[in-house]
Amino acid sequence: MDDRLTETQIEAPLSLAKAGGHGDRYGARADRMGRMAALGLPLPPGVVLDFATVASIAEGGPIPCIPDPIGPILALRASAGNRRWGGPQSILNVGLSDATLPALIDKIGARGALEAYRRAIRSYAVRVEGMDPEDFDNLLYDQMKFASRLGERDLEAIVAASKALYEDETGAPFPQSRDAQIEGALRAMAREWNAPTARILREANGAPPHAGLALIVQSMVFGLGDSRSGAGSFQPVDSSTGDAAPTGRYLPDAQGGDAGRGVRTPHMITEAERAEAGQTLPALETLEPAAFAALVDGAQTLTRGFGDTYEMQFTVECGRLFILDAEPVRRSSRAAVQIAVDLVECGVIGRETAILRIEPRSLIETLHPQVDPSARRDIFGTGLPASPGAATGTICFSPEAAMALHAQGEPAILVRVETSPEDIRGMHAAVAVLTVRGGMTSHAAVIARGLGLPCVVGASDLQLSLKAGELRARDGRVFRQGQRITVDGTSGEALAGAPAMVPAVPSPAFGRLMDWADEIRELGVRANADTPADAAMARRFKVDGIGLCRTEHMFFEGDRITVMREMIMAETVEERIAALDRLLPMQRADFAALFETMQGLPVTIRLLDPPLHEFLPHSEEEMAALAAATGLPLARVIARADDLREFNPMLGKRGVRLGITMPEIYDMQARAIFEAAYDAGSRTGAQVIPEIMIPLVSANREAELVKARVEAVAGAVMAERGGSLEYHIGVMVETPRGALRAGDLARSSHFLSFGTNDLTQMTYGLSRDDAGRFMRDYVQKGVFPEDPFHSLDIEGVGELLLIAAKRGRATRPDVTLGLCGEHGGDPESIRFCKVAGFDYVSCSPFRVPIARLAAAQATILTRNSAR
Amino acid sequence: MDDRLTETQIEAPLSLAKAGGHGDRYGARADRMGRMAALGLPLPPGVVLDFATVASIAEGGPIPCIPDPIGPILALRASAGNRRWGGPQSILNVGLSDATLPALIDKIGARGALEAYRRAIRSYAVRVEGMDPEDFDNLLYDQMKFASRLGERDLEAIVAASKALYEDETGAPFPQSRDAQIEGALRAMAREWNAPTARILREANGAPPHAGLALIVQSMVFGLGDSRSGAGSFQPVDSSTGDAAPTGRYLPDAQGGDAGRGVRTPHMITEAERAEAGQTLPALETLEPAAFAALVDGAQTLTRGFGDTYEMQFTVECGRLFILDAEPVRRSSRAAVQIAVDLVECGVIGRETAILRIEPRSLIETLHPQVDPSARRDIFGTGLPASPGAATGTICFSPEAAMALHAQGEPAILVRVETSPEDIRGMHAAVAVLTVRGGMTSHAAVIARGLGLPCVVGASDLQLSLKAGELRARDGRVFRQGQRITVDGTSGEALAGAPAMVPAVPSPAFGRLMDWADEIRELGVRANADTPADAAMARRFKVDGIGLCRTEHMFFEGDRITVMREMIMAETVEERIAALDRLLPMQRADFAALFETMQGLPVTIRLLDPPLHEFLPHSEEEMAALAAATGLPLARVIARADDLREFNPMLGKRGVRLGITMPEIYDMQARAIFEAAYDAGSRTGAQVIPEIMIPLVSANREAELVKARVEAVAGAVMAERGGSLEYHIGVMVETPRGALRAGDLARSSHFLSFGTNDLTQMTYGLSRDDAGRFMRDYVQKGVFPEDPFHSLDIEGVGELLLIAAKRGRATRPDVTLGLCGEHGGDPESIRFCKVAGFDYVSCSPFRVPIARLAAAQATILTRNSAR
Repeated sequence: MDDRLTETQIEAPLSLAKAGGHGDRYGARADRMGRMAALGLPLPPGVVLDFATVASIAEGGPIPCIPDPIGPILALRASAGNRRWGGPQSILNVGLSDATLPALIDKIGARGALEAYRRAIRSYAVRVEGMDPEDFDNLLYDQMKFASRLGERDLEAIVAASKALYEDETGAPFPQSRDAQIEGALRAMAREWNAPTARILREANGAPPHAGLALIVQSMVFGLGDSRSGAGSFQPVDSSTGDAAPTGRYLPDAQGGDAGRGVRTPHMITEAERAEAGQTLPALETLEPAAFAALVDGAQTLTRGFGDTYEMQFTVECGRLFILDAEPVRRSSRAAVQIAVDLVECGVIGRETAILRIEPRSLIETLHPQVDPSARRDIFGTGLPASPGAATGTICFSPEAAMALHAQGEPAILVRVETSPEDIRGMHAAVAVLTVRGGMTSHAAVIARGLGLPCVVGASDLQLSLKAGELRARDGRVFRQGQRITVDGTSGEALAGAPAMVPAVPSPAFGRLMDWADEIRELGVRANADTPADAAMARRFKVDGIGLCRTEHMFFEGDRITVMREMIMAETVEERIAALDRLLPMQRADFAALFETMQGLPVTIRLLDPPLHEFLPHSEEEMAALAAATGLPLARVIARADDLREFNPMLGKRGVRLGITMPEIYDMQARAIFEAAYDAGSRTGAQVIPEIMIPLVSANREAELVKARVEAVAGAVMAERGGSLEYHIGVMVETPRGALRAGDLARSSHFLSFGTNDLTQMTYGLSRDDAGRFMRDYVQKGVFPEDPFHSLDIEGVGELLLIAAKRGRATRPDVTLGLCGEHGGDPESIRFCKVAGFDYVSCSPFRVPIARLAAAQATILTRNSAR
Repeated sequence: MDDRLTETQIEAPLSLAKAGGHGDRYGARADRMGRMAALGLPLPPGVVLDFATVASIAEGGPIPCIPDPIGPILALRASAGNRRWGGPQSILNVGLSDATLPALIDKIGARGALEAYRRAIRSYAVRVEGMDPEDFDNLLYDQMKFASRLGERDLEAIVAASKALYEDETGAPFPQSRDAQIEGALRAMAREWNAPTARILREANGAPPHAGLALIVQSMVFGLGDSRSGAGSFQPVDSSTGDAAPTGRYLPDAQGGDAGRGVRTPHMITEAERAEAGQTLPALETLEPAAFAALVDGAQTLTRGFGDTYEMQFTVECGRLFILDAEPVRRSSRAAVQIAVDLVECGVIGRETAILRIEPRSLIETLHPQVDPSARRDIFGTGLPASPGAATGTICFSPEAAMALHAQGEPAILVRVETSPEDIRGMHAAVAVLTVRGGMTSHAAVIARGLGLPCVVGASDLQLSLKAGELRARDGRVFRQGQRITVDGTSGEALAGAPAMVPAVPSPAFGRLMDWADEIRELGVRANADTPADAAMARRFKVDGIGLCRTEHMFFEGDRITVMREMIMAETVEERIAALDRLLPMQRADFAALFETMQGLPVTIRLLDPPLHEFLPHSEEEMAALAAATGLPLARVIARADDLREFNPMLGKRGVRLGITMPEIYDMQARAIFEAAYDAGSRTGAQVIPEIMIPLVSANREAELVKARVEAVAGAVMAERGGSLEYHIGVMVETPRGALRAGDLARSSHFLSFGTNDLTQMTYGLSRDDAGRFMRDYVQKGVFPEDPFHSLDIEGVGELLLIAAKRGRATRPDVTLGLCGEHGGDPESIRFCKVAGFDYVSCSPFRVPIARLAAAQATILTRNSAR
């Protein structure tokens, strides 16, 4: 084919049936309609004017000759390079004139033909001559004062009045020549495309500055008039389930989108649908069995030809079906999975295509209950959608209240200004969490995602007064402990009362899709799991191991916190060791349970990370209680808490800094891990190879010092227990310096696991807990294209990951590279990890399916782009 | 020369006079002595056994033949590759025997000769045979019971007893052959060099594992005996001032280091010295005028030959001078400058050599008063030496108390747990600062260095109870407000009372040296100056401009803080603008004063950086006062303060984030800057080109948004004032992401100024305020080689600077690169900046001379290494 723009092309438009496969010159719609015509679908005949021709028309160039066989009356439709770039509305009934009217009356009856003529004059006047549409509508309404349904005479009068109006306004009669109407309509559409507003709008949707427009000139088919004519839409599947079930709407005596305008009640497509809706109007199936059969047939052809299920816009003209256009069926995420899997099983598409077709994030909806889309939403507060799903429960303003309610078997919703590690038990007991402060990666958000709890954070339009015991909404409503509310973590809203919910039942199709994903993906998917319950949840989602077990959460359970605090209060190493000795069996039991649950799958345990003050009580009452429990003077408790206070805890004495300045803590943890590995190994028979991770390393010497002590503990435990124990020691890379020095770190590390939460904080110099206050503003203003705590910042943090991966591998080619931040569950970030050559990602248990699917997609995409 | 080890070399030791210039084979001492001999200085003749020969001797190899002309009695001295690596002590009087004794008696008298023999037997027995020195000393003490000064007979008896003791212990008589004594002594010294402890010690001082030892065999000269013999040390300059003034000590009838052992009172060298010391013993000048003249002469020869002033060890044998060794004169930093400048002026060394010879940090001592080194120090607390110099004053526990005292003209010392921006006025009023908490870059430390105030931080052995109004030392002593103490910021100590001080008077020599440095250096040196007073101070230190003016400090002055707080309390943009309108004239006046002081030199002004909560009061009383002052309800004040509170203020809503979310603040500051530029320019006639710096940028869009608004303000001011105004807008690069994206940033930036304080914090994930608690531990354990807040971390932060410089220059080749962190005053970091191609560094005014000198050194070193 010749791609050059020539006069010949302007003279000879491309026939519609040949337009398929030339979207880059004829636009998406012409391409689609061409491919549909090529499949033998019943489309009205037509031709296409390409981008160059239309550009020339816009500048006053010649109008190509539209061949007569297309018919005397035409529909003109826009075809831009991409559906999202819009384009001028269609102009219909072009060529209708006093001369062509009689033949149309013969074909579809006088009423239909006159209505078409009325519409033809109106749209030509408005679009070509720029007249006010209201003037024409007034003619119609004036006439309708006298008749609820317009008869032939009424319409004749309106047509005459319309012509007169046209001539009054333009000084010339309504053009009676087909060619004149075509020229006027084509120039109008070409001009509209070049209007500044249209340009701005499409460029906002990603169109290039010189995006072209093609125009389709098609024979007009008429749904108006004749009792066997009408217009409608049809799709072969159910949009919410994806199950095979023809469905749609049909409106007799209608044109284009009339069926959706709600003027009259449309008919259903099948009798089954009609029966279910309790409608009396007969279904299309009954009205026009041949057209219906052709639709079912056409949908099948389209599915096989286009590789997806499509919704079709159609017109029935005197009993004969014409398909006008088609677009992929809109579908819920659940339906998307079902449709994709069905298409694979019918041999229409391959597994890889099915996998690529599902947006991984959409799986969330299939895993959590949701508020019924049709339920009334009584929103009293809005925040950030921190953890998806919805739950209804009773307001609790304290973790204790939530635990008490949970003990009674009642669903509790924990409502806090913000949460701290002390709230963990309350969060475990709650069905959802709502906080007034905090960002997408605040404590509440991170923990809730880990627990799979619906969560809304940063609902700053709410005021929580614990003193008054009330939660006050901006509209003045007050909610108190004990009232029922619903937290919708998918939308980020707090709802009053208990709206209807849609349950989460993963379908068999979901299971099949995930199995295929596992066969394809190369990137491991592990879970961030701190407890045997987390681990069991992760295993239900078919995880490859645990990539991050945060040991600190274990210290808040039950009465351990008191022992932990005694440890912190210790004034001598001996006192500290005595307290640690009491924590040892508890940690050992935790680790053993975790190892047993994981049955030999890898488990990476991070040594204690948070600063010690996080474990101390904050209020004076609690401090007094601690003093009483430990027998220490209150003054000493207060002094110690004061002493540990930090200006910037995120950048303080935590992680390996704690491990080096108080090495006894890591000694205890290492011993607990090794002893638990022995215990679990002998109980399950599956060998446990624990992976010990050192947090917050910024210099290799830190890792070396800890490693030496951990190895000493391992030696001691082996000597006591006999046999030999395999284990790996690695580093959590979460400071920019750690990333830059990864070449050094790999020397002491079996693995490097990137903690992208902290790495993002430090790379931006931005605390995730404090960023919530302005992040929405920042993203809205386009300062940051996205919240970097949500989707990995490829340009900054990503570069550090690439530098680190390269340097780490240079020193130790077989070093294992993992990512264990929140980004481990983010599809774009997962794709990045695949490209960067990582071995695994680790994410919240609830995001494991998302990560598995995204990992499979990453493999397919990398493979495709390498081809 | 043939470098291979051959038998010939073992047979033929190198003559001392030829050893100069062969330190890599004969060691540093032999090299030095060889060069001294070559200069014609009166050294005893000798030969050197090289490293290979001594190594062979240690393994039992042959002993080379020591030529007879060296003399019958010898001194053996060690010569290692580097003075710091040590080496066996000298063995003297080798070869003295019954046979050689008479000749020695003839030469120096019986008493001296017998004492030498006694020493010879003792040292041979101890060093070669490993006998206990105490046994020999007891013989001496036994004899001394009967006589306070030993006579000839006494010594004869001790020599005989020593010989008997030797034979008793070893089973053989004391060896009478010169060769046998030489062999024993040489093998002993070679063996001692190889002892494990000696190896470990020298390796700790940087010696390589196979460091060699050479041995010098020299004719023995005798200071013992004869009334015209003795030993001493001499130097041509005063160690504390550097002024030309021969000085030293001389002890007759003494050998080697006897003069320094304090057995007898030594004589002075010159009569002037004797007179000043009020001593009666005649000076060497009088006792031995010829030897004295030879010493003065020798010192001059040595200075010219070696290019530095040396202290010489000498022996006078029967009135004849012998020089034994020499080392560079120990000198105070003030003396170092004087000596270097004098050497240049005498034509001994060039200016570059003089500049390289001064340790830049040592200049601090010449710029601040210090505690007199000879004063008694009553230390009651120890912390970090955060800002050098010492000051005595009255304890004040609050900034208000310090200001009150200052108003009375009394020196105040501000003592705080830690300081915050609210203490700034108190710090301005104080002569020194002492804090219980904080690290080298805590608020107190940074501000104190900026103000040039002596400061000790992190004195964690002190307990400050504001309630009790007392500062309690670990030893139980209690200090209260009003007591006098001294803060020694050079040593990091808090001293009770008022020890004697040494004032700081920069000498003319200092001025000359700095002028030379300015002629050589290429790197600009600017000052971090916030006020006209800072700026004036910086100009006194001959600064090239202001690299960082932190505007926030201006908001704490006088009653501005109240207006600032009103601005923060504003609930609407209009309220905020109203408050800002009141701040505008104040800021404008500040900037105008700054510009006027700098007389057209560049001034970089950083837009507001700290989070707003830093400006709010903390206690409920203060909040109540604010509520009263502003007429706002107390609840609103508290709520707003609560609202602004952050988890990690360092990583919070500050810098450009503030500028983007509350753009009115930067608008006001930009207007104040531009209007001030007009005002100052018209007043002084020197054109002001303000440089506006946007802090904490991590994405270029941030800079673009602020830049657009600043440009709009500039346009408005120009329209109002007329004419045109030149100004530059740049970015403060202080987040790792900012550094990585410097290529983008340079697009919107005229300059990139690296804020290495924050960049270090974020690269390490380490808050400078919190790091103080464990940094000492970390550096001591070698986890970090140095405090990265003190000396730039070349490997991590440095790599980010290099990446940023490269990328910034790639986008905009003429972008100005500066460094404005604390590191701007650190010599190693300055050298790094020179190598990295930076344009300037900016540091505290008090560190400007250090930076100027270090910058000159960097230029010289870079030039030399390029040769």
